[in-house]
Amino acid sequence: MPVEEFRRAGHQIVDWLAAYFAYPERFPVLSRSAPGDLIRALPPEPPDTGEPFSVIFEDFERLIVPGITHWNHPGFFAYFAITGSGPGVLAEMLAAGLNVQAMLWRTSPAATELEEVALGWLRQLLHLPADFEGVIYDTASVSVLHALATAREAAMPDVRTRGAFGRTDLRPVRVYMSAHTHSSAEKAVLLLGFGRDAIHKVPVDDTLAMRPDALAEAIAADRAAGFLPLAVVATIGTTSTTAVDPVKAIADVCEREGVWLHVDAAYAGVMAMLPAWRPLFEGCDRADSFVVNPHKWLFTPFDLSVLYCRRMPLLRQAFSLVPDYLQTTEAAPVKNLMDTGIQLGRRFRALKLWMLLRYFGAEGIRARLLHHVDLARRFAGWVDDAPRWERLAPVPFSVVCFRHVPEGMSDEQALERHNAAILDAVNASGEVFLSHTRLDGRYALRLAIGNLRTEERHVRRAWELLADAARTVTV
Amino acid sequence: MPVEEFRRAGHQIVDWLAAYFAYPERFPVLSRSAPGDLIRALPPEPPDTGEPFSVIFEDFERLIVPGITHWNHPGFFAYFAITGSGPGVLAEMLAAGLNVQAMLWRTSPAATELEEVALGWLRQLLHLPADFEGVIYDTASVSVLHALATAREAAMPDVRTRGAFGRTDLRPVRVYMSAHTHSSAEKAVLLLGFGRDAIHKVPVDDTLAMRPDALAEAIAADRAAGFLPLAVVATIGTTSTTAVDPVKAIADVCEREGVWLHVDAAYAGVMAMLPAWRPLFEGCDRADSFVVNPHKWLFTPFDLSVLYCRRMPLLRQAFSLVPDYLQTTEAAPVKNLMDTGIQLGRRFRALKLWMLLRYFGAEGIRARLLHHVDLARRFAGWVDDAPRWERLAPVPFSVVCFRHVPEGMSDEQALERHNAAILDAVNASGEVFLSHTRLDGRYALRLAIGNLRTEERHVRRAWELLADAARTVTV
Repeated sequence: MPVEEFRRAGHQIVDWLAAYFAYPERFPVLSRSAPGDLIRALPPEPPDTGEPFSVIFEDFERLIVPGITHWNHPGFFAYFAITGSGPGVLAEMLAAGLNVQAMLWRTSPAATELEEVALGWLRQLLHLPADFEGVIYDTASVSVLHALATAREAAMPDVRTRGAFGRTDLRPVRVYMSAHTHSSAEKAVLLLGFGRDAIHKVPVDDTLAMRPDALAEAIAADRAAGFLPLAVVATIGTTSTTAVDPVKAIADVCEREGVWLHVDAAYAGVMAMLPAWRPLFEGCDRADSFVVNPHKWLFTPFDLSVLYCRRMPLLRQAFSLVPDYLQTTEAAPVKNLMDTGIQLGRRFRALKLWMLLRYFGAEGIRARLLHHVDLARRFAGWVDDAPRWERLAPVPFSVVCFRHVPEGMSDEQALERHNAAILDAVNASGEVFLSHTRLDGRYALRLAIGNLRTEERHVRRAWELLADAARTVTV
Repeated sequence: MPVEEFRRAGHQIVDWLAAYFAYPERFPVLSRSAPGDLIRALPPEPPDTGEPFSVIFEDFERLIVPGITHWNHPGFFAYFAITGSGPGVLAEMLAAGLNVQAMLWRTSPAATELEEVALGWLRQLLHLPADFEGVIYDTASVSVLHALATAREAAMPDVRTRGAFGRTDLRPVRVYMSAHTHSSAEKAVLLLGFGRDAIHKVPVDDTLAMRPDALAEAIAADRAAGFLPLAVVATIGTTSTTAVDPVKAIADVCEREGVWLHVDAAYAGVMAMLPAWRPLFEGCDRADSFVVNPHKWLFTPFDLSVLYCRRMPLLRQAFSLVPDYLQTTEAAPVKNLMDTGIQLGRRFRALKLWMLLRYFGAEGIRARLLHHVDLARRFAGWVDDAPRWERLAPVPFSVVCFRHVPEGMSDEQALERHNAAILDAVNASGEVFLSHTRLDGRYALRLAIGNLRTEERHVRRAWELLADAARTVTV
């Protein structure tokens, strides 16, 4: 592409993004396109001859943007609300332009070393001790996969060589989690060959937190039955309700039993930066691995997941394979990031984390997190104070689970239809987007706060729309 | 970040990138920083208070850029040379700004449907039949992992439930590849619990291509010995020399034996677009899975790997787990991309592929690929014509393996020291960056062409620098 065409289009895109960031509300938050709309709008066959970028950009605005669900919209309250902050997006522009591939130190010394620096900073902010070494992956799914693979390496090192198939000397494995643990942990269990039966779901208490006594019992019973208790996945901030498993008590059990402890703090981990929340993180210093996703609640454009591991040499041992064409020698020992995972290639993700940690500073980050928690608490207060509305879980962070219970309606299926209709109605407004979950068989609406553009008026508007819908929907 | 600050910084970055793309040669291609330089230049502790972006950008230029190895430099000839083309970088700017997370259709209908359209286009360009369905992953490492996991699902569906540990009814697995197969296939074998012993390296012929007769013998012998022959990884364009395994003959063996065939065409797959190279791809239509990486030789900013699979419903069956909080119903059946892999979250990667396929068009892509092949052939010709230089492998695509053999030097260790010294000398020039490999115990220099900015003068300059170094280095 001629440099002048790049420059012109680049400036046009920056202006487009600036206008977009200034007022994302001009788009409905949940896309209104119907299944197949975009596929039908585009030619089924590839173009033979090239076109100027300006034409492609027109099609982007005309065809692609209507099919976008706007995660940048201040009324995005679904799943976990996120922010691709300004400094993060600017860093992504630079990373895309540099296009370095940080598999080896020499293929980009700065990408390798900046990852070390930025993850050192984040580790200190999270109050994790220095024996945790960090590595950046794309997603928490990949992080937990590496954590459990390393647990396998720790417990059964010869599986790396001999495998698990057709052997009579291995015990079937058990991995402990709760019904509220993220599904990615289950996917990792499947991939590693443990099988879905290996998942032992430990009962939870009435805050939906894993019960350490039940965990201890489960491990003892499994051991007696000939299973190998391999790992526990404890969560600080479960996906449905942001429940907090008691890591300290779970760590006690894991230490006693010699079982790997992985802490999934993908969403809520950043709250370890705040003194009032730090007690929830007690015991994390004794975990074997800990995941936090800056792309969730640390204003980082997707994707960037961080795995901190206290046994990184073991993780490297599980994954390091260096073919001839990737052998290098440097003037001093260096870290080659390809040794810390299955993915050989890796983007320069550390750049955005480093830039935004500097841009916001620790104080700026803490203030923004507190603001989100405050908004969630206000919303929870409105729910609590309103007749016919019911809150369905505690609110330790920035997510509220709740439902509307019309007078005289007690059948769970009727309540589900009613609340699902409310959800559809508010989401159709284009002003807000909420999602749902299911708690002990009860259908729950779910409002998640995490976008830097969200102000009280947006949360209040969600509440108005919900109240209106509760009055008007019929199913 | 205030929108005005974003706009100002964004325009500054676009101008910086435009100047960079206009003349990347102003930087040495291989970074001259020493191990630890950047770590020492940055504070070990995180910043408490925020800073304006302009200050951070100054540090980027002053501290980060010197630590960058410039994959955009026209003299980048190491590993596989790549290009983050203009339209690709512009698309990445938009994708970072939109920050959509395409796990479900509704979390971004356009990202989901554009992936289908762009992969349909690419599939047609590659002449793969319509029964191949595509999915975008980050890297070929993740693609081959999914391919082999699906092979496991096909051969032993109950491993998904019951696992492989502690069972007496499973046979040990064998996966076939050659000594030149990419190391990511081995990592996948480890991860899936097959163990490194499961890797059966099939002998190659004198073009370094896998021998189908030896493959058939290996499978027969393994079967007789009680192993389960699970999958073959055939490569079109191996990493060291871009050798081409005979897919057609291998497909015959795989069909006969009921063994999964995965074709790794991560680098060279794009050459299926060119009629003269199409015979090398014969038999690919009978593969079970086929990987091509647009971020390698299709001008796409890192990362974007495409897995085409003829048995995608089986892949979904291996990985689909839908928790309550991710259940959706739409007006018509939709594809939820989270069902096609281990990673729940995914960036809007299809945007860059779609934009650059339109920008270059099929004809434009073919012309650029041919130009790269032509440059490699010229370089190979110079090697062939020069006394004391030896070419070490055929050149089917755009990579040349070669070495210098001084008069009277025949000891392999001496030759390695001599050629490694040549490599260090040319890489220290800052004008070019080559890498090396090892072929049958022989140390080989390796020149890879794949950057859109590379012209004949850059390749000629590499040749001059090599010749100079060959005359002057002493070891």
